Formats: sequence, C-alpha cells, structure tokens
Amino acid sequence: MKFSDLIAQLEPAFIQASSLTAHPDCNPELVGVASVEVGQSERLSYIENAKFAAFVATTGAGALVLPDDPALSQQASDRGIAWLTTPNPKLLYAMVIEQFYQPYRPQPQIHPTAVIDPTVQLGSEVAIGAHVVIEAGCIIGDRVCIFPNVTIYPGVEIGADTVLHANCVIEEQTKIGQRCVIHSGAVIGGEGFGFVPHPPQGWYKLLQGGKVVLEDEVEVGCNSTIDRPPSETTYIGTGTKIDNLVQIAHGCQVGQHTVMSSQVGLSGRVKVGNWVLLAGQVGIANQVEIGDGAIATAQSGLHKDVAPKAVVSGTPAIDNKLWLKVSAAYNRLPELLQTVRRLKRQQK
Amino acid sequence: MKFSDLIAQLEPAFIQASSLTAHPDCNPELVGVASVEVGQSERLSYIENAKFAAFVATTGAGALVLPDDPALSQQASDRGIAWLTTPNPKLLYAMVIEQFYQPYRPQPQIHPTAVIDPTVQLGSEVAIGAHVVIEAGCIIGDRVCIFPNVTIYPGVEIGADTVLHANCVIEEQTKIGQRCVIHSGAVIGGEGFGFVPHPPQGWYKLLQGGKVVLEDEVEVGCNSTIDRPPSETTYIGTGTKIDNLVQIAHGCQVGQHTVMSSQVGLSGRVKVGNWVLLAGQVGIANQVEIGDGAIATAQSGLHKDVAPKAVVSGTPAIDNKLWLKVSAAYNRLPELLQTVRRLKRQQK
Amino acid sequence: MKFSDLIAQLEPAFIQASSLTAHPDCNPELVGVASVEVGQSERLSYIENAKFAAFVATTGAGALVLPDDPALSQQASDRGIAWLTTPNPKLLYAMVIEQFYQPYRPQPQIHPTAVIDPTVQLGSEVAIGAHVVIEAGCIIGDRVCIFPNVTIYPGVEIGADTVLHANCVIEEQTKIGQRCVIHSGAVIGGEGFGFVPHPPQGWYKLLQGGKVVLEDEVEVGCNSTIDRPPSETTYIGTGTKIDNLVQIAHGCQVGQHTVMSSQVGLSGRVKVGNWVLLAGQVGIANQVEIGDGAIATAQSGLHKDVAPKAVVSGTPAIDNKLWLKVSAAYNRLPELLQTVRRLKRQQK
Repeated sequence: MKFSDLIAQLEPAFIQASSLTAHPDCNPELVGVASVEVGQSERLSYIENAKFAAFVATTGAGALVLPDDPALSQQASDRGIAWLTTPNPKLLYAMVIEQFYQPYRPQPQIHPTAVIDPTVQLGSEVAIGAHVVIEAGCIIGDRVCIFPNVTIYPGVEIGADTVLHANCVIEEQTKIGQRCVIHSGAVIGGEGFGFVPHPPQGWYKLLQGGKVVLEDEVEVGCNSTIDRPPSETTYIGTGTKIDNLVQIAHGCQVGQHTVMSSQVGLSGRVKVGNWVLLAGQVGIANQVEIGDGAIATAQSGLHKDVAPKAVVSGTPAIDNKLWLKVSAAYNRLPELLQTVRRLKRQQK
Repeated sequence: MKFSDLIAQLEPAFIQASSLTAHPDCNPELVGVASVEVGQSERLSYIENAKFAAFVATTGAGALVLPDDPALSQQASDRGIAWLTTPNPKLLYAMVIEQFYQPYRPQPQIHPTAVIDPTVQLGSEVAIGAHVVIEAGCIIGDRVCIFPNVTIYPGVEIGADTVLHANCVIEEQTKIGQRCVIHSGAVIGGEGFGFVPHPPQGWYKLLQGGKVVLEDEVEVGCNSTIDRPPSETTYIGTGTKIDNLVQIAHGCQVGQHTVMSSQVGLSGRVKVGNWVLLAGQVGIANQVEIGDGAIATAQSGLHKDVAPKAVVSGTPAIDNKLWLKVSAAYNRLPELLQTVRRLKRQQK
Repeated sequence: MKFSDLIAQLEPAFIQASSLTAHPDCNPELVGVASVEVGQSERLSYIENAKFAAFVATTGAGALVLPDDPALSQQASDRGIAWLTTPNPKLLYAMVIEQFYQPYRPQPQIHPTAVIDPTVQLGSEVAIGAHVVIEAGCIIGDRVCIFPNVTIYPGVEIGADTVLHANCVIEEQTKIGQRCVIHSGAVIGGEGFGFVPHPPQGWYKLLQGGKVVLEDEVEVGCNSTIDRPPSETTYIGTGTKIDNLVQIAHGCQVGQHTVMSSQVGLSGRVKVGNWVLLAGQVGIANQVEIGDGAIATAQSGLHKDVAPKAVVSGTPAIDNKLWLKVSAAYNRLPELLQTVRRLKRQQK
C-alpha cells in the first residue's frame, strides 16, 4: 500500500484527524509495521514521545508516525523517511496496523460437529466452530464468533459481535455484552470459592447462586477466571481490559475502562473504580475498594482502600513516592544497624 | 417459599438445630438470598457477627439469620423482619441458599459425541457431556458428572459423585476420590517440572512416573494445576479446597481440610498439614513443611518450615505479629535514616 | 529387570559412561525407582550429593545411584545394597527412570472425530486425538502427537516429534519447533495485551500482527500463556523449559536453556538470556533485560536490567547476598526504631 493511500484510509477514522500532517513528498510502498528499533524500509514505525526521538536518526523505517515536533519531522525528511505527525502517535500507529493486519476470524457458519441445544437462540451471521457445545436456553447475539472446543453452560447470554476464543468456558448465570473478546482457555462464571468452616467435619460448601455480568467491550485474557458469587453479581464495567491468568473472585465490582495486567488477583467482593491500572501480579484483599484512576504498581498487595488517583506500591501497599524512598533506604538497612550499634556503644 | 416452610426444611439438616430460634410471627414469602447490604424484602440475608450488627437497623431484608443475641433479634422484630438465630449464622446461611438454588447438573446420560474407550468401566447414572474423551482403562464411579470437552488420559479413576467441569484435563496415573469437584480448565496429573542440568547440551528430562491422588471431597479451582511426580505420589487429603489458578508441583503432600486461595504456588515436595490456610498468591519453596492449622497471609513467601498454628507473613515469611510491626516501621525508614545521620553528626 | 541388565541398558546412553562403576556382586530384581526416603527393596533410589549421604545408612532401597565416593559405596555394599557411582547421580537417575516408565503416547492414527482442514499438511506417523481441530494451512511434522480437544488456528507450523497435550490452544502466526512439549491447557500465540488510552471513549485496541516462535525442545507447562506481539516475534530459544501458569507477554525474547518456574510473569518485550533461572512467581517489568546465567529467586520483582550471572532477590530486586542481610535486618526494624528513639532522647 502506498503511504499516500494509507493516509487517505486513516484520515476519516482518526478522531484528531484535523491535526494530522504528512510528509508532502516521500511516498514509499508499505507492507506493514515494525517496531522502530527494527525499522524496515517497507514498514512504518512510530516514535511515541521525546524519549524515543533519537531513533529518528538511526531507524531504517520507510515511514514514521511522529509526535508534533517540527524538528523531528525535519530530521525524518532529511533522511528521506515519510512521516505523519499527530499529538498521539501510539493511537495513530494502532490505526495503521489495522490497514495491514486483521486477526483471523472464521466465516459465519455453524460447524456440523457443534452441539447446540434446540432451545438456543442464535443471532444472524454467527460463526460457531467445531466441537463447540452450547447448552439449553442460551442466547447468542448477531455476528458472535465462537472458536472450536468452547463450552457454554445453560442460560448464558452473549451480546452481538463478541468473540469467544478456543477452549474457553462460559458457565451458567453469565451475561456477556457486545463486542467483548474472551480469550482462549478463560473461564467466566465458574463457582466462587465459598466454604464455611465446620470442624471437625470439614468445610461446608456455600453455593454460588449469583450472576456474572460483563458489560460491552470487555476483554478477558487467556486462562483468566471470573467467578460467580453466592448472591447478586460479579460485575465488570464497559471497556475494562483484563490480561492473561488474572483471577477475579466472587462478587467483585469492577468499573469502566480499568486495566488489569497479567496474574493480578482480586479476592472476594473487591470494588475497583473506573480507569484504574493494576500492574502485573498485584493482589487485592477481600472487600477492599480502589478509587477511580488509582494505580497499583507491579506485585503490590492492597490490604486497605485506595483513594482515587492514588499511586500505590509494596505489600502492604503505601504511597508510591514513599515506597520509592523506603525501597532505597531498605538496601541500607544492614549499614544502618551497624551505625546505630556504634552510636549506642559510644554513648555508654 | 414461606419463611416457616424454609425453617421446616432446615431444622433436621442443621447440626446445631436445637439451638435454632425463629421469629414467632413474621412469615414472609421468600424467593432467595441476598447480601445484607443489598437486602430485599423477599430475600433472606445474614449477619455474620457483631461487626455487621449495624445492618439490622438499615437492611431492607425480609428475613435475617442472626447470631445468638436477644438485642439483635428484638431489633429485627421491631422492624418487622423475620429472623432465625444460631451460633453459626454463615453455616445456616449456606444451608438456606441450597433451598433456593442448585447449580446446574446435566441429566445422567452419555452424549453420543463422547469418545469413550470400550475398556472404560462406567458406573451407574453417570452424566457424560458432549465431546468428552475418556481413554482406555479408566474407571468412572456412580453418578459421576463430566461436563463437555473434558479429556481423561488412560487408567484414571474417578470416585462416585465427583463432578468434572468443562474442558478440564485429567492425565494418566491420577486417582480422584468421591464427591470431588474439579472446576473448568483445571489440569490434574500433568507432568511435573523435572529436568537435570546437562550443559552444554541443555536440560535432561526427568520423566514423571509417579501418581496423583485426590482423596474425597477435594475441590480444585478453575485453571489450577496439580502435577505428577517422578516417583511416589502427589497427594491431596480429604476435604481440601483449592481455589483458581493454584499450582501444586510434583510430589507435594497436602493434608485434610486445608484451604488454598487463588494463585497460591507450591514448589516440589512441599508438605502442608491439616486445616492450613494459605491466602492468595502465597508461594512455598521446595520441600518446606507447613504444620497443622498454620496460616500464611496473602503474598507471603515461605522459605522455611512453619510450625503448627503459626501465623506468618512477608517474604521471607516471619511471625505475623512481628511482620505487622515491621511493616509499620518500614514506612518510617527514610525518616529513621535521617535521624541516625543527624545523631552521627552530633556525636562527632 | 535385573540390576545388571539395567546397567547394560544404560552404559551406551550415558555420556560419562566411562566413569560408571557398579557393585560387583549384588544383583537385585528391580521394578522401578523410588525417592531415597521411601526406599524399597525392589526399587532404585539416588543420593544426589553429600547432603543426602546419611540416607545410605537408613534407606530400604535395593539399589542406589551414588556420587563418586568410595566410603559411600562401601557403606552401601556393607548393607547389601547394589550401587552405581557417577559424577552426576541425578542425571543417571533420570536415565534409569526411562527404563521403567514411559509417559503415555497414543498410537499414530487420526481419530475420526478430529476436524482437519483439507489444506493441512500432515507428516508421517502423526497421532491426532479425538475432537482435535486443525484449521487451514497448518503444517504438522512427522510423528507429532496431538492429544484430544486441542485447537490449532490457521497457518500454524508444528515441528517433528512435538507433543501437544490435551485442550491446549495454538493460535495463528505461531511456529513451534521439533521435540517440543506443550502441556495441557497452555495457550500459545494468544493476542498480546495491547491498548492505547483514548479517553473518554476507552482503550483503543492495538492489533497483534506479529509472530510467536518456539525453537526446538521447548517445554511449556499446563495453562501457561505465550502472547503474540503487534509486530516482529515473541521468541523462545532452544531447550528453554517453562513451568505451569507462566505468562510471557507480547514481544519477549527468551534465550536457550532458560528455566522459568511456575507462575512467573514476563511483561511486554522483556529480554531473557541463556541458562537463566527464574524461580516461582518472579515478575519482570516491561523491556527489562536479564543477562545470561542470571538467577532470580522466588517472588522477586525485576524492574531493572540484571547483569549476566547475577543472583537477585526481592522487590525491587537487589543482589541476593545483600537481600539476605537486609531481610535479616528487616526483622529487627521495630527494635532499631526504639533504640534510635532512646539515643535521640539521651542526646538532648
């Protein structure tokens, strides 16, 4: 695809299209994208911000998406690299990728080996792969795409344009919105982990009769698990994105546009606000509440409520700035112990 | 269901039934349960203990399970709420849920798409879902329920009344007891992670010819993994409950009625006693032994043996009370460093 | 099998066979192996090194693999235990296991319920289990063994002698080498977790058009996940072994013969060298580089590059020796605070 044709494709799609400026002369033929470090003449790369600006001088990329900085675009021009500038290079880069690559989606058809209960309501143009099982009473929206070996328990609802990747399981009492993506091996609606101590016999099972609701545009990563509560609803708000191997226990309430990185674990009845960022391996204790826009850095352990927009780190989690100081001081503990011992001796 | 009918259903089942007292007059019609914060007039809620007592004054619940406290039952009566009192409200609540909700179980039948080796011994009234695969020589007990897309390797034994949820995998040399529940996507009996360093060629594989045994009433959460050892047995005792995404490596010995929360990881040949509690994301190093009744709080890392009934926290794990003090002191480290620096200066 | 026959089987296979010495007289009949603690008369056990030497005096084993130490072999002889000595007892033990146990592998055949696109290229002697799905354009090497309920997306390549255990998923743009083992429930080639913040609408999806390449002899544990990047390749070098429930995000580059224990998590674009050891639950932040031969102990959090052969611990990770000192000092923090308070008072 010619660089000029790419720009023509992008402009109407791009929200901030008015601020898009392109190199007037260079017009390379492009076959895809590449990271700027790799940089190939027939591929487009991007410079996210000033931190990566030095790559403009060295990259082999044939075209670049640049932040709005005349010096950078001049430098690119001087090197014969076609460029586009925008206030949000990564967003534009995401839009460019779509012009070259679309993930595999099967044709709308129902594979003859799929086992679909006669009471299931199927929307139009659904794609249902081989060996899929859909139990009684499910409602499957228009253009839903279900990859092979998926199992759906009775009474589940799946909204239009949602994709269920291979071998995932959607259990009873679950409702998934529109344009969601459930990745391979994820389990949505599994029985929450509820037992009452009843010694000496053992643990008495607390049945999980509640619901699981995922609103629209939610993504759930490979092999992640979202559990069904004893009553009410485990709830994931619109646009929230969940990475691989994440655990969301029974009765959690997660807001909109929140992001959870891989291996995050939410205990029972945790509340997470909107636009929260939970980095990898973060754990949150039972019933803790995390305010809107808060950030928890990797591996932190949240035992207490976190205020909106707070940034926290460590276990138990504290303010990130304090944690950075404490972590620095931490390494000097053995030295500190020695100093104090000497001071003590001298004072006697 | 009328409140009075509910009580009639419960009394014989409840172990401590003799101590059950119910409101003599109110008799609402109930359709289910709800958490006490939600509290709906046609639903029953429970007050676990004094900590939640304030909810009696505000809940909209039509009926309540209360701890034995005449003041609380009087308060409920005054608000026209039907009530039951018991020394163990959460246990009674679990028994109430069962009257309103039972998890989905398929009818006993063998789906025609299931692939079952002719040498498999099937008990009576088994339910085997679509696309299940059971290899040669397996023994499947009475009333076992196997959801769709489950794979069972050769020679596996599954005890009576056990449930295998969708898409789980039971590998060779595994024996699962009676009334167990293996949740969706779990893998039991996978090959332990054993390799001998053999540079420069690489790692030499140590084959895993041992067994995996789960005793009766064990639960294994969604996408959890329990590995097969090179010799002898990876063993999970009766009544032990394992949450989602837990790893139990080759050769671990876990006692009875132990509870492991989500994302716990046990390394090779760990021994865990009876009635142990491992909170979320706890890790235990190779061959460490955890005594009966011990508790490890969330994210702790256990590198050394833990005494019976000990409560430990942190990495490397220490006594929980000490850890609480240390954690409080930890945040004051930068301040401490400054103070010591000043003291040092002054002393010179 | 007679002990003498076992030795005859082993000798040509064993790289350091020349240094193998066996007990001249004892020749028990053996049925398998056992750990040395268990030690049974018809089973062979091994003593890894001096640390376990005391077991020679107590074990009930009928035969032992011993390190080269005449005192130990004499002691074994005195107790009537057959023995073999070698500089690397664990390696020889691994070779002994193979004589008694081989993991289950199905016969080469294609199950009639497998759904294989007509464009798939199948090698000779492949074993393809029930309900396996292989989409268009895949290339499956000779003697590949695919267990039941596996799903393979279009265009995937699987090298000769590779084993895919049950219910795993291999997504598009993935190439797996020869003699690899992908364990049950693993997902290779799932879509990387890439989103661009685009408030107030939400997160804009960054499509993942890159590749996933696993070189030869790679193992991936049960329910582990390895993601596809937006461009270029997520790469796992020859002989690298990955345990259960591990996350490898988009664009990671992992070297040869590296070992990752269970529940390790690598963020996007992490680089890991050759012969690296990552213990359980280690987390590595975006774009961090880990040098050849480095070791990260359990639960450590690596936020910065790690030098070759470094041993690091803690979060944020520091030199292991310093961490051991700091951890010891850590427990004395409350005491330290008190001392400093007293010193301060006295100085006034």
